[in-house]
Amino acid sequence: MSKEVKAWAATSPEKIEPLRITRRALDDEDVAIDIKFAGICHSDIHTVRSEWKKTEYPLVVGHEIAGTVSAVGKNVTKFNVGDRVGVGCMVNSCRKCENCKEGEEQYCLNMVETYNAKDPKDGTITQGGYSKYIVADQAFVLKIPESLPLDKAAPLLCAGITVFSPLNHWHAGPGKRVGIIGLGGLGHVAVKIAKALGSEVTVFSQTDSKKELALQFGADTYVTTSDPKAFDGLGRKFDIILNTVSAKVPLEKYLSSLRRDGSLIQVGVPPEPLQIPPFSLLPQRNGIHGTLIGGIAETQKMLDLCGEKQIFPEIEVVPASYINEAYDRVVKSQVKFRFVIDVSTI
Amino acid sequence: MSKEVKAWAATSPEKIEPLRITRRALDDEDVAIDIKFAGICHSDIHTVRSEWKKTEYPLVVGHEIAGTVSAVGKNVTKFNVGDRVGVGCMVNSCRKCENCKEGEEQYCLNMVETYNAKDPKDGTITQGGYSKYIVADQAFVLKIPESLPLDKAAPLLCAGITVFSPLNHWHAGPGKRVGIIGLGGLGHVAVKIAKALGSEVTVFSQTDSKKELALQFGADTYVTTSDPKAFDGLGRKFDIILNTVSAKVPLEKYLSSLRRDGSLIQVGVPPEPLQIPPFSLLPQRNGIHGTLIGGIAETQKMLDLCGEKQIFPEIEVVPASYINEAYDRVVKSQVKFRFVIDVSTI
Repeated sequence: MSKEVKAWAATSPEKIEPLRITRRALDDEDVAIDIKFAGICHSDIHTVRSEWKKTEYPLVVGHEIAGTVSAVGKNVTKFNVGDRVGVGCMVNSCRKCENCKEGEEQYCLNMVETYNAKDPKDGTITQGGYSKYIVADQAFVLKIPESLPLDKAAPLLCAGITVFSPLNHWHAGPGKRVGIIGLGGLGHVAVKIAKALGSEVTVFSQTDSKKELALQFGADTYVTTSDPKAFDGLGRKFDIILNTVSAKVPLEKYLSSLRRDGSLIQVGVPPEPLQIPPFSLLPQRNGIHGTLIGGIAETQKMLDLCGEKQIFPEIEVVPASYINEAYDRVVKSQVKFRFVIDVSTI
Repeated sequence: MSKEVKAWAATSPEKIEPLRITRRALDDEDVAIDIKFAGICHSDIHTVRSEWKKTEYPLVVGHEIAGTVSAVGKNVTKFNVGDRVGVGCMVNSCRKCENCKEGEEQYCLNMVETYNAKDPKDGTITQGGYSKYIVADQAFVLKIPESLPLDKAAPLLCAGITVFSPLNHWHAGPGKRVGIIGLGGLGHVAVKIAKALGSEVTVFSQTDSKKELALQFGADTYVTTSDPKAFDGLGRKFDIILNTVSAKVPLEKYLSSLRRDGSLIQVGVPPEPLQIPPFSLLPQRNGIHGTLIGGIAETQKMLDLCGEKQIFPEIEVVPASYINEAYDRVVKSQVKFRFVIDVSTI
C-alpha cells in the first residue's frame, strides 16, 4: 500500500513548506524507513533554488537520511524491522554497467538521485528526506552502527562520503600528508576522517578564526592563507589536497605544494571554471580530479570507520520550521558545521 | 682535456649563428659523444626567445641528440667507443631523492636540463645539441638500438618520451582507448606509439586535412573537431586523452568523453591557464594531469620499443644554416613533422 506522509517541500525556489506526499508501496526489495533525522546539504539549496538542473516543484529535498526500518519487502535480506539505517544521495542505479559491478554506483550513467530524479520503479520524481518516511531499495540502504548517534550519522551520508571517497580512493593513510582547503561542512569532516585514517593533516583557511577548532578536530597544522607567506616552506609536501571550497582559490599555489603524482581533488563546485596554469601541473605529474560521493560499499566502510573511531560531524539540530532560515545561514557560512532537521518536528 | 667545438648558438632571442664553445674534459663517469643529428624542439625556440625562464646568451640549445661514443671515462661501464647513443632533455639529477631512486629523475628538484641550466660538474651553463660534440654523464646517456636510424631517433629523445611517458604511466595498451589531440610534432609520434602499445587510437584535429596521414600512422578513428557534431557519440569512451596542442581547446568536451577514472593529460603548454568547469571533472572521477618527459629507464624502454616496432617520427633533415628559417616554420606549424639538423653541416 502506498502511504501518504508528512514532509517539507520546496514549492518554489524561494520557499520550503509543509506538504503531504505519497510514498510507493514496498516492492519485494524495498525497505520502509521511519526517518528520524535529515541533514541539510548545500546541494539541497542549489536544487531548491533550481541552480543546477531543472527542479520539479513541489520537491522534497534531503539526502542525508537516518532512521529505523519499519517494514521490509519479502526478498529483503540485508535488514530487519528496527534496524538503524541511512539513505544517502542515490536510491538506485542500473546494476549492470562496469561502474555498478565495480561498486562505483555513483558513476553509473543511470544512477538515480534521492530527489529530483525519475524513479525507475514507479516513474515518479524521487522525493528526499525532509519527510517522516521513505521507501528505498535495500541495495541503496546503509547500516548505521550502534555507536553512531542517528542525528550525527545523517550528515555522513553525503558530507561524510563526499570526503571519505577521495581520501580512500587516493590512499590517505599513515605516511601520507593531506591538505584540506576550507573548514566548513565538508572540510571539518574531512579533517576528522583523514586523521582517523592515519594521515598527517593540514588545514588551509582564509583567516585564523578556525584555527583552534581545526586543531581540536585533529589537524596537525593550520595555514592561514591570507598570510602572504602562507605557502612558504610547503613546496612539494602534500600527497593529497582536498578542495572543499566552492569559491575561487589560487589552485596553482596548492598544485605547487603537491609531491610527485599528488592530486588536488575538487569536491566543492565553484560556479566559475577552474583556472589552471599548465606549468603548475607539469613539473611533478600532478593531477586535478573531481569526485562525486562514493559507492554503497564505500559508504558502508565510511560509516563503520566513523562508528569505530567515534567520528561525528559537528551539528546543530533544528526543527523543520527553521529550514528556510537555516538555508540562509548555510549560504552565509553561518553554521558550525552542519544543520540536521529533527524529523519529529515535521 | 677540455675541447673547443663548433656549434650554432643563440646570441640573442632573434638569432642563432655559428659559435665555438668549450666542452669539459671527461671525468670518470663521462661519455664523449660525436653528435650526428639534433632535433629541433619547440622548447628550443621558447628558450632561444627567452619565453620561459631567463636565457643565458650565448646559448646552444637542442635536447634531441643522437650520435656515437668517441671516448669514455674510466668508470664508464654502460658504453664503449663507437656505440650509438642519445642524450635527451636532462644531463644530471641529485640521484638521492625519492624521485631519482624511483627512476623518475625528470621530477628531481635538482634535475639538470641539457641546456640553459647550471652544470653541477663544472658550474658552467649547460649547452645543448646544436653542436659537433657533447660530454655527458653515462647515467643520462641512452642506447640507440641498431634498428633505429640516428636521424629519426633524435626526436624520440624529447618528443618521443614526452608522449610515451604518459601513455606508459597511465597504462595505454590492449583494450584501452586513447585519444590524441593534435597531429603535430608530438601528436604524430603519440599516435604511432599508442598504436604500437596496442591501444585503440582516435585523433582529434581541427580540420580534416590530416586525416589520411593520421590513418596512415595507425589511427583507428579521426575526429574533425570543427564539425559541430564531432563529439556526438563519444560520450564516456576514452581511458586516456593526450592533449598535445598548445592552443586553447575545449577541455570540457574532452573531459566529458572520458570513462570513469580517465585522464586528460596535458603535454602541450598553452600560454593561458586551462579553463576547467568543475562539473566536467566530477561526474566520472576524471582527472587532468601534466607530465614532463620521462625517466632514463623509461626513455630506454621507449627507444627499445621504437626499435622493435620500427616506429620512426616523420622528419625533415636540414643543414644548420636553415635553423632560423626552420624555427619560423615550426612556429607557423609548417613542418611535417619534426626538423632534424644534420650536424655534419655545423
